[in-house]
Amino acid sequence: MIPTTKIYLPESEMPTHWYNVAADLPNPPAPYCAPDGTPVPPEAMLAIFPEEILKQEMSAERWIPIPEPVREALTMWRPSPLYRAHRLEKMLGTPAKIYYKNEAVSPAGSHKPNSAVPQAYYNRQAGIRRLTTETGAGQWGSSLALAGQMFGIDVRIYMVKISYEQKPYRRSMMTTWGAEVFPSPTDMTNAGRAVLAADPNSNGSLGIAISEAVEEAASRADTNYALGSVLNHVLLHQTIIGLEAKKQLAIAGDYPDMVFAPCGGGSNFGGIAFPFLADNATGKQVRLVAVEPSSCPSLTKGVYTYDFGDTAGLTPMMKMYTLGHNFMPPGIHAGGLRYHGASALVSQLYHEKLIEATSVGQLETFAAGVLFAKSEGIVPAPESCHAIAAMIREAKACAKTGEAKTLLFNLSGHGHFDMTSYDRYLQGELTDFDYPEEAIKASLADLPSFAKV
Amino acid sequence: MIPTTKIYLPESEMPTHWYNVAADLPNPPAPYCAPDGTPVPPEAMLAIFPEEILKQEMSAERWIPIPEPVREALTMWRPSPLYRAHRLEKMLGTPAKIYYKNEAVSPAGSHKPNSAVPQAYYNRQAGIRRLTTETGAGQWGSSLALAGQMFGIDVRIYMVKISYEQKPYRRSMMTTWGAEVFPSPTDMTNAGRAVLAADPNSNGSLGIAISEAVEEAASRADTNYALGSVLNHVLLHQTIIGLEAKKQLAIAGDYPDMVFAPCGGGSNFGGIAFPFLADNATGKQVRLVAVEPSSCPSLTKGVYTYDFGDTAGLTPMMKMYTLGHNFMPPGIHAGGLRYHGASALVSQLYHEKLIEATSVGQLETFAAGVLFAKSEGIVPAPESCHAIAAMIREAKACAKTGEAKTLLFNLSGHGHFDMTSYDRYLQGELTDFDYPEEAIKASLADLPSFAKV
Repeated sequence: MIPTTKIYLPESEMPTHWYNVAADLPNPPAPYCAPDGTPVPPEAMLAIFPEEILKQEMSAERWIPIPEPVREALTMWRPSPLYRAHRLEKMLGTPAKIYYKNEAVSPAGSHKPNSAVPQAYYNRQAGIRRLTTETGAGQWGSSLALAGQMFGIDVRIYMVKISYEQKPYRRSMMTTWGAEVFPSPTDMTNAGRAVLAADPNSNGSLGIAISEAVEEAASRADTNYALGSVLNHVLLHQTIIGLEAKKQLAIAGDYPDMVFAPCGGGSNFGGIAFPFLADNATGKQVRLVAVEPSSCPSLTKGVYTYDFGDTAGLTPMMKMYTLGHNFMPPGIHAGGLRYHGASALVSQLYHEKLIEATSVGQLETFAAGVLFAKSEGIVPAPESCHAIAAMIREAKACAKTGEAKTLLFNLSGHGHFDMTSYDRYLQGELTDFDYPEEAIKASLADLPSFAKV
Repeated sequence: MIPTTKIYLPESEMPTHWYNVAADLPNPPAPYCAPDGTPVPPEAMLAIFPEEILKQEMSAERWIPIPEPVREALTMWRPSPLYRAHRLEKMLGTPAKIYYKNEAVSPAGSHKPNSAVPQAYYNRQAGIRRLTTETGAGQWGSSLALAGQMFGIDVRIYMVKISYEQKPYRRSMMTTWGAEVFPSPTDMTNAGRAVLAADPNSNGSLGIAISEAVEEAASRADTNYALGSVLNHVLLHQTIIGLEAKKQLAIAGDYPDMVFAPCGGGSNFGGIAFPFLADNATGKQVRLVAVEPSSCPSLTKGVYTYDFGDTAGLTPMMKMYTLGHNFMPPGIHAGGLRYHGASALVSQLYHEKLIEATSVGQLETFAAGVLFAKSEGIVPAPESCHAIAAMIREAKACAKTGEAKTLLFNLSGHGHFDMTSYDRYLQGELTDFDYPEEAIKASLADLPSFAKV
């Protein structure tokens, strides 16, 4: 009798509602603020987001219905399979039971389309036919390109120039799905022109690309903006991952002791972890672990205060664990999750000790990715490798204690477009890098006075 | 009610036997021959293949059991899902019902591991711990790297040099799974050294890489050779695709009028089509269409005679439709399926008019791929685009006649490692190229006298 590897959920069993963790927070979420410390009302963001998205951003309802056209669009790849990692367990010699949710099966290769699809839908419902966004390596940009195609929305993507030049394959993918892609900084926005005036050879950064996309959306009535992580509504859309996982674990007759997910902006972690937090509110005790790179350690080494979402300071300020919006991850860092802060929801939960966080160096990260590829086959995205590495630590601990814990992690994406990072690792070109405390203090220095730490 | 997109088969329903089409041939298969026209006995190939593989190569048994360890290994990704292409049907405005088998879900991204796994298994059973093989763009090489890892076999891959340099990502994938990869021609074999002596800057070719891999396997007792298409046992292993598809179509309450698959060496086509041929033998009338590039048209423009499997003439000769073993596809050709011949089984079936063949120009091919990506999401491998293009022709014909035919095709792989080809297409750099009859005649000129045409 061959043990079951993949647990599928029929399309008819796909969740009908997203789970909104804001309903189960012990304390109300901190409001968004202007640089003078006064709260920013949601209406202020109507220039770039549709009303329905803003409602979700501010909602305190526990369950928010997923519109039927969104559910139908998601069946393109959802429900995603849950895997029991028999082969990895064997290779680790652990009594732990390891499960992973495979979000790499989406056409864009990651969990990102889970939010791109509803964002495109709500914008289209609001009469919007054009969206702008930014992308670094391209996971979010390709997801929005796909979603825009599904709902008849034109998508313009500002792609960080160095990625545009060095990682052309994701750009090709976005173009194949019909999106426009420009290397940022461009000369099409004030933000871009200002950067180019100071440095015509700028390689660009995620912060600059966000500023360009937001500026264009704010200045054109026919155009909105879409963000791939950090914001509450994005994390809300991603909870479909954890909700499905719970149903699939029930089919397997199991329930996790610990859940691991990579954490950059937070959509990946929030997506799989929040639905289990709902169970903790009713008596369960699942440990939820956000895993971040030691070279970009916002939760484990950052400060909990108000900061901007982008480099140029065009976004409202959010209360979050941050390394400072001028933070630049070191060039040696190859594993993604480069955002300077963590989402407000993840940050608050961490501050209130309802979730845990840990950091992993990149050598351990890629070693975990290679071990996973050799046992389970799938070459994981470098982001996903962070969760795998932290989970492996626990599985090895179980091997010592003999405990048969049930461990779940989010395989957020595949690494097909990240093979250069694997190459660098396999050729010994990578080293670990712990982001120094002094550099964090320095990058936090220019916060507005009300947010000073 | 949302219409079902994906039809899954439980792992317990995975086929227990492969289907051997040789049992249902109206005439016995032509034997393998030496250059003097005398039959080559199977034992002559024991230097590079294990006995069990050779038995399968020559078998006339209709059903051949799949060993349990192979079935267990295949559950890493199998059964693969069958999709109903609702979105593509809508975009085409066709009454046809379109289904596709998604072989892109394997960790290597194509159908190739379906044979790599049993080949690694049988070699390991025979005590072999080392395999050599060749690869062009890398689909087969990465599949054997994965399978070798699963069964504890070291894999050495001779990768066509121009691909090694221009498509480094598949090489990285093979290395991640632990294989050794060398740019061919190398100075490690007589075949390689001879090529380098004549042209130190040789870009390599599939034919040269095969010669290097075969030479090494033949000269080392601890090493065997594995091939990814063409041979009977490879096509046998691939029939799991069609066998699963039949079960899944039965779940959907459907049965195909036509089946389409890309055809290079033939494992892709044989894999999905042969199990339906078994039904034709018992009264059904499914049309089975092999689709090839117009720039590499072995079935539609080649000659049915004996030819070598490789450029150097190290392999036995097989009776097949061939363009001549010196055939070189034009540089403009971007879509794979570059082999000079078709497998002996596919060739015989075509010769006996039990299957059909058609060719498609590459502009139509990539246009079909982009349309598929825009409707179904998945960016298909250029090889798969051939089947999609031919299937779309039929779906459009149905739109005119109003016929609601059921069409099935094999989505043999994804295009994540082929985005440069999409780029070239989207940037207008590709043109069509029909391989000229005179060139075919010329490349057939040096066949041994008994095979002259």
